[in-house]
Amino acid sequence: MTDLDTLSVNTIRGLCMDAIQQAESGHPGTPMGIAPVAYTLWQRFLRFDPRDPIWPNRDRFVLSEGHASALLWSLLHLTGVRAVDPDYEILGRASVTLDDLKSFRQLDSRCPGHPEYRWTSGVETTTGPLGQGVATSVGMAMAGRWLAARYNKEDFELFDYDVYALAGDGCMMEGVSSEAASLAGHHGLSNLCWIYDSNRVTIEGHTGITFTEDVAARFLAYGWNVTTVSDANDLDAAARAFHAFHAETERPTLILVHSHIGYGSPVEDSPKAHGAPFGAAGVRETKRFLGMPPDETFHIPDGVRDWFDRGIGARGAELRGAWEKQLDAYRAAWPGLADELDRIQRRELPDGWDGDLPDFPADPKGIASRDSSGQVLNALAQKVPWLLGGSADLSPSTKTRLTFGGAGDFQPDEPSGRNLHLGIREHAAAAVANGMALTKLRPYWSGFLIFSDYAKAAIRLSALMEIPVIHVFTHDSIGVGEDGPTHQPVEQLAGLRAMPGLLVFRPCDAGEVTETWRTVTALRREPAALVLSRQALPTLDRSRLAPASGLAQGAYVLADAPDGQPDVILLATGSEVSLALSAREELAGDGIAARVVSMPCWELFDRQPKEYRDRVLPPAVTARVGVEQASAFGWDRYVGDRGIVIGMHTYGASAPLKHLLTKFGFTPERVAQAARELVAERQGVAV
Amino acid sequence: MTDLDTLSVNTIRGLCMDAIQQAESGHPGTPMGIAPVAYTLWQRFLRFDPRDPIWPNRDRFVLSEGHASALLWSLLHLTGVRAVDPDYEILGRASVTLDDLKSFRQLDSRCPGHPEYRWTSGVETTTGPLGQGVATSVGMAMAGRWLAARYNKEDFELFDYDVYALAGDGCMMEGVSSEAASLAGHHGLSNLCWIYDSNRVTIEGHTGITFTEDVAARFLAYGWNVTTVSDANDLDAAARAFHAFHAETERPTLILVHSHIGYGSPVEDSPKAHGAPFGAAGVRETKRFLGMPPDETFHIPDGVRDWFDRGIGARGAELRGAWEKQLDAYRAAWPGLADELDRIQRRELPDGWDGDLPDFPADPKGIASRDSSGQVLNALAQKVPWLLGGSADLSPSTKTRLTFGGAGDFQPDEPSGRNLHLGIREHAAAAVANGMALTKLRPYWSGFLIFSDYAKAAIRLSALMEIPVIHVFTHDSIGVGEDGPTHQPVEQLAGLRAMPGLLVFRPCDAGEVTETWRTVTALRREPAALVLSRQALPTLDRSRLAPASGLAQGAYVLADAPDGQPDVILLATGSEVSLALSAREELAGDGIAARVVSMPCWELFDRQPKEYRDRVLPPAVTARVGVEQASAFGWDRYVGDRGIVIGMHTYGASAPLKHLLTKFGFTPERVAQAARELVAERQGVAV
Repeated sequence: MTDLDTLSVNTIRGLCMDAIQQAESGHPGTPMGIAPVAYTLWQRFLRFDPRDPIWPNRDRFVLSEGHASALLWSLLHLTGVRAVDPDYEILGRASVTLDDLKSFRQLDSRCPGHPEYRWTSGVETTTGPLGQGVATSVGMAMAGRWLAARYNKEDFELFDYDVYALAGDGCMMEGVSSEAASLAGHHGLSNLCWIYDSNRVTIEGHTGITFTEDVAARFLAYGWNVTTVSDANDLDAAARAFHAFHAETERPTLILVHSHIGYGSPVEDSPKAHGAPFGAAGVRETKRFLGMPPDETFHIPDGVRDWFDRGIGARGAELRGAWEKQLDAYRAAWPGLADELDRIQRRELPDGWDGDLPDFPADPKGIASRDSSGQVLNALAQKVPWLLGGSADLSPSTKTRLTFGGAGDFQPDEPSGRNLHLGIREHAAAAVANGMALTKLRPYWSGFLIFSDYAKAAIRLSALMEIPVIHVFTHDSIGVGEDGPTHQPVEQLAGLRAMPGLLVFRPCDAGEVTETWRTVTALRREPAALVLSRQALPTLDRSRLAPASGLAQGAYVLADAPDGQPDVILLATGSEVSLALSAREELAGDGIAARVVSMPCWELFDRQPKEYRDRVLPPAVTARVGVEQASAFGWDRYVGDRGIVIGMHTYGASAPLKHLLTKFGFTPERVAQAARELVAERQGVAV
Repeated sequence: MTDLDTLSVNTIRGLCMDAIQQAESGHPGTPMGIAPVAYTLWQRFLRFDPRDPIWPNRDRFVLSEGHASALLWSLLHLTGVRAVDPDYEILGRASVTLDDLKSFRQLDSRCPGHPEYRWTSGVETTTGPLGQGVATSVGMAMAGRWLAARYNKEDFELFDYDVYALAGDGCMMEGVSSEAASLAGHHGLSNLCWIYDSNRVTIEGHTGITFTEDVAARFLAYGWNVTTVSDANDLDAAARAFHAFHAETERPTLILVHSHIGYGSPVEDSPKAHGAPFGAAGVRETKRFLGMPPDETFHIPDGVRDWFDRGIGARGAELRGAWEKQLDAYRAAWPGLADELDRIQRRELPDGWDGDLPDFPADPKGIASRDSSGQVLNALAQKVPWLLGGSADLSPSTKTRLTFGGAGDFQPDEPSGRNLHLGIREHAAAAVANGMALTKLRPYWSGFLIFSDYAKAAIRLSALMEIPVIHVFTHDSIGVGEDGPTHQPVEQLAGLRAMPGLLVFRPCDAGEVTETWRTVTALRREPAALVLSRQALPTLDRSRLAPASGLAQGAYVLADAPDGQPDVILLATGSEVSLALSAREELAGDGIAARVVSMPCWELFDRQPKEYRDRVLPPAVTARVGVEQASAFGWDRYVGDRGIVIGMHTYGASAPLKHLLTKFGFTPERVAQAARELVAERQGVAV
């Protein structure tokens, strides 16, 4: 430990205290306690080039205890990390300026309350909801394994990055981290290191009031390597632990660090240190204890920036330079693979990626949308080598398994496999997919729609981060049948649709399934949720109906009134579209002209110009019936004040589907009847 | 092991196979493997009286691997469990008849696909979503501890029930069970026994593909007692394990049972045994292997029913009889406490329970609804001794701590405490609350609204089961401020409102907070979500406005146009109500008469007669502005085709609230402006 080490650590602590004090808001306790370990990692180990924070083989640092954001902002500032724009261009400006630090938690500062991916470069993933960062880090480590397996060649060790995640007591208590740790242990991810900042203090008090398990023993049970740092202030001990991590080749490593929340402050070891500024006097007192000038704020002593330049800066530049030189040689030796890497980095797809999608001829008997989805996915995955994913133990049901030759299973002895077995761990599954998408692979994961509830917080993060994860959900309604209400989604569609930035697709037939995959595969900054049926859906005869490409507008006129002047509009998604078409025929027999609008993606429809929306749903036609085997919540927007929604208002029931359709009123007769009533009402008014 | 033991086990297996075969749907693999252990528990240990399946001190049996429902139906049938009606009256009829078994998974059968609480008596909790059952069982065991601490007296051991949960590999992988196991270990719940049916096979294959951790070691790390049964067919080994559980007085027990999925069938040890009938030939072959008549279906050999009567039946009747005798004596010795127990069982409240709720005088500066909620809760809890709960480590922020004398902390050495420290484990917190509500205590739990996402699946179960859990969510909007988008709920309100059977309240001031608690405390069969602010809300001057009791109708006219004929209606909830009132004043200055409707609970409003709804929202007044700091999703229902919703369409941002209000447009000026535009539009039309 040198004087500059100590000075650097205390500079970080000072910046954190000052930023939080200035904001009169924030979480000083964690940075004060764990700063020495974070500093040791960054300065002595992290293979990260501040001048190119998106260098593909960089080590990843995930601040899973995201409330300690001031710690990350201080490190990003002191190391001079450059900003990156949304098109992955490195910008001249710093990612975090001193002004940003001074405006911590203020509008438009690059130093928000929690780390936000894309907003501040150097942030590898958005964190704050506890447990998410560590779980996401598992996906990053798995992606590293996969990249190495596919792209490393003799003499070309392109990918060997490590993933570090800094976690607190909260992260260790959350179920999502347990799921992820079990998965990481199974895969023997020796490129993964979680640093458990064990300060034993949470908001309600000492962890002894509720969290008395033996965390180290638990991780050993998961198959992890566990090492302990008994004093967070001991930089050499931390260094030894990181060396132990590097020496481990079979298992992920947990470094259990005993730290003191609010170290050096008047509220050290108290819950009071967690979430409130120390106050001006407290800050001064703490600085005095640390040997820092008590009255200077945002103080960066001479030599500290330079010290970081000579440490992480010099190391990162050298490693990145060598890597780029290697990549140049790789381009010559392996041009095809090098081209893939370039496209991955820019989130582009191979030429002709959607050239050979399956064609589904009209078929009244049809095919379940989970099945057609499986076929389309397999066609796409053969064209897009970095499209990969798995299921929360449901791939035989969700049909997301890649079955073509060479797809393989991702396993410790087969890290190039593209089928992930994520286990009955939906929450970790979604978080792992997030981690892979942050590494710019194109991941999907699948489960039953009902279990999207288990993964909700991670799905939200994919939307908040604007990363193109593909969430595949099957068994999308009471169509589940006999398994009953615990397995029949009702309100899940509404919940997903309400989530900003998530595109939710519920295609009505195999044709729309193909178009859904075409649309979502091309997404670069948006996650999507595919909502697919268990039961067969007729493949519509598009020669007599509008083409499925209308899906790109979110909703489109599938079948119209003969003269384009409908008496009534029937709106539906997924399995209810063919129901609406049957009702339309029934109504035609009564001389009522019905238009059927398929609306597989509300979000895309809402983005269309008003002119298009009014063409599909003419304001003058107020007789509208919406039908969907899901909560009616949200449908009023489209059926309007005078419309009728045929949806679910209760939970489902356990029975064969045909009986449920009658019980809950999803029959052509009921739809037609509702339409007739509305038309009669209008004519009554007209008369 | 006697012949009748073997015969009983194989009778259960036969019934399961036949029910599933008849339904052509179901999960035979698990019952075949674990039937001997379940049988041993029920026949030899479970203190359960089939004639009174809701006897308060019964042992609880939770089928956490709910897909094995046929196993439970067979046991309920063979033991002759009586039905119970919703008012807790024991009915003469059997809970599960042979006809029910024969119509397994058919509409209206008492044998649905998964166990459904309230629908079939003998079902202690709805299961199916994996991990929920075991997590819920922890709440039941904690409730047992609490009941014993409060109601047991010298010579009166009224409560000493045990809780058993049967779990599969899936339950062990889900994060919610990890959270719950850690909590159970902390509390040393020696009245809790999880039976881990380890058949090592899941839908995608052998658990070796993803789940290779050492589960026993993990549970030891949580502080559990672990014992192993190496052969599920060894009834004596199972009995020894249950004896070991009973002998353990400090820790919960995990019994790890090595079993064979689909035991005895042609698909034994294969994923094929999991979720599909064996086929008629397979069933016959299996029966032959088991020594049962291969061609008889739903066969119950002579003597088997009687054997159950002499086992669980006789034991249960004796124990229940002794308990009731004891209770009679208790009534004389402890009449007050006995009265409490009667009320608990009937889900009734003490007389005068809402007599002393705090009164909040008008105050423009006001009080955060989380704070007023804390005051009301404390007042109520003093009147309702079995109202208890805790927080996922956020009680200093959610203000749900009971601070009056004697409330205490629920801890191993203080099981009468009423403040639960649930840890940073939202999912388990909600599941534990479910378990306590199933024991008929009145539990609440609290967290930040954003983290309701983590607990979604358990919240749903409270609604599906119709149990009165009180979910308290604070920090309900961008009002969170500096913590930023990861902590600012946007779509959570819509997601909760879309959930059938859940009442969602977002009160606008301390007066509505009081009325919210008054309403939800009286609920007997509905869970509620309270959505409360971090920031202060003005306490409205009710002398000039409608009384807060209007909350009971879900929405009410808070402030009207002078002549009751508004030009425009402003609709709002929570923190936006005072905003609407300000806009109303601004509009009055322009000669525009605005009505303000506070709509704290949409679900209750939707239940009102049309006449009331039309009175609050007259159809003729189409100029309507809805304002809520949440996703606009769902608001169209109330603002109508011509209305405007001022809501969130993106995620929030990290900044002090006042800047966010401007950024996202939650200002009186913007609301007034929207109203003016609508009024002008109408007048334009009128002219």
